[in-house]
Amino acid sequence: MKLLSYRHREEEQYRAGLTDGEWVWDVAQLMPDAPDTMEGLMENWEHWRALLHKMEQEKKLNSHAGLKLESLLLGPPIPRPRSFRDFYAFEEHVKTARSRRGLAMIPEWYDFPVFYFSNAAAFSGHKAEIHMPKATVRLDYELEIACVIGKAGVDIPVERAAEHIAGFAILNDWSARDLQLEEVKVGLGPAKGKDFATSMGPWLVTPDELEGVKIPGAKGDRYDMTMVARVNGVEYSRGNFRDIHYTFAEMIARASADCPLYPGDVIGSGTVGTGCILELGEEKGGWLQPGDVVELEVERLGVLRNSIKK
Amino acid sequence: MKLLSYRHREEEQYRAGLTDGEWVWDVAQLMPDAPDTMEGLMENWEHWRALLHKMEQEKKLNSHAGLKLESLLLGPPIPRPRSFRDFYAFEEHVKTARSRRGLAMIPEWYDFPVFYFSNAAAFSGHKAEIHMPKATVRLDYELEIACVIGKAGVDIPVERAAEHIAGFAILNDWSARDLQLEEVKVGLGPAKGKDFATSMGPWLVTPDELEGVKIPGAKGDRYDMTMVARVNGVEYSRGNFRDIHYTFAEMIARASADCPLYPGDVIGSGTVGTGCILELGEEKGGWLQPGDVVELEVERLGVLRNSIKK
Repeated sequence: MKLLSYRHREEEQYRAGLTDGEWVWDVAQLMPDAPDTMEGLMENWEHWRALLHKMEQEKKLNSHAGLKLESLLLGPPIPRPRSFRDFYAFEEHVKTARSRRGLAMIPEWYDFPVFYFSNAAAFSGHKAEIHMPKATVRLDYELEIACVIGKAGVDIPVERAAEHIAGFAILNDWSARDLQLEEVKVGLGPAKGKDFATSMGPWLVTPDELEGVKIPGAKGDRYDMTMVARVNGVEYSRGNFRDIHYTFAEMIARASADCPLYPGDVIGSGTVGTGCILELGEEKGGWLQPGDVVELEVERLGVLRNSIKK
Repeated sequence: MKLLSYRHREEEQYRAGLTDGEWVWDVAQLMPDAPDTMEGLMENWEHWRALLHKMEQEKKLNSHAGLKLESLLLGPPIPRPRSFRDFYAFEEHVKTARSRRGLAMIPEWYDFPVFYFSNAAAFSGHKAEIHMPKATVRLDYELEIACVIGKAGVDIPVERAAEHIAGFAILNDWSARDLQLEEVKVGLGPAKGKDFATSMGPWLVTPDELEGVKIPGAKGDRYDMTMVARVNGVEYSRGNFRDIHYTFAEMIARASADCPLYPGDVIGSGTVGTGCILELGEEKGGWLQPGDVVELEVERLGVLRNSIKK
């Protein structure tokens, strides 16, 4: 299933919708008892997921009025996540980004998956314009995958982590490289290098849709899904989700150690190898500029498109 | 004014209360139109603050039924802040904590105030038991002051920052030093070293209560308020809020640069000099142990007491 948060132009609040990529069905209209937001659905996701899945299987959607996807404004699938942890789970990205700064690989990176908290209040969705920080001249994108938590838990073992995953979405962790480089010298963060925008979307894809590309492993599942980034139509980045070093199961185990995870929490994978300008080098086309259009495409997850505000 | 979040033992939701330190008046009972949570009040804080202030000035509180503070459970004044930024604004703490690890002061620290995002979903209040992470043998407290945002804004200049402050509270940024030391080697965070608990309280004190100790400056206000920490009744830390290098006004300007702040957002000052065991050295009495009681006392802000769960 694909789920999203949408609104009409004249409304303020996002509502939960189910989509086939062309039409959107308002979840609270399909099921009058259901909460009308994605955050609300996540609070009791196993229950609502089963009911929605049954409606879809029984082909009952078309007996309900749908909305044309193109006519709607999409938010991030979870407009107000309670927390946003961003990991650093692709080895190639860490190696290359560091070597670009003349730094060697960190031995401790192989010991456990590391994350930082970023700004959960700065999420935007598909087609949103990204506001470029005034102080940056080195704006970058980051091609990532987000995992959304659909069931609360603490000390979740790797082998039970899949039960806590509501779904996946494409994530763009927009980065101001000059701000980031300055602040991390002080040994905290990154924070201002990242807090102006994170885009996620276009929708949340439930794990059952990825069965055909799943690569099970002793430490959780990987997925054979090509990941591509384009700037103004030109391909910049190409990687594959199967190359991730730490699985989302391992990240969930790490994040939940002695710390509760809540429904709607967002976990970022970190950038796939080649997945940002910092790694590619400025020769590729330079840092992002106002008016640029960045498209992140991940097999089975769709296309997340954003432009830089002029 | 002093505001808090309280609940009765049998209830789940925290409600907003006004207190004189002995009695608590439920805000929604004082003003039937008002929201019943602190998060709700913060959304339109200027309006509710003025009405509450007027009731207090006109001595109307005692005509309403109060609840005995001792009989209530207190949460953090803001139970669910939308974001939590923790700064690093006391010079002595940064210098001493680094020199304990054999590191020199960072020149860039003097360029601008730096913060990291921490876990806004892990707040607890006065008297809460703190759960010690299983993997740590180096549990520490951090004596800080929190500033709560009461008015949304972006690109807030230093000279307008005071308008955005709803109030202050004592903050304990509990830290697992062994986890923190390991993870920051990878260049991100801290995260797991901090995400298990942050306590805040006992209540939120509005700026008008601090007029008598205010030290105005060109870059915002400092306050002459002694800050003390005690472990099991023994004084460990003693500092003063006036020694902060960056004011909250400067921190708000930094945090809000190209990034909206929202009502209820929490900003931590960073640890005051001598304000944690890491700085004092283990000779003081060693790391915290199950059963230990940590009291943070700040003049005019009260006492925040927590114990480590056995």
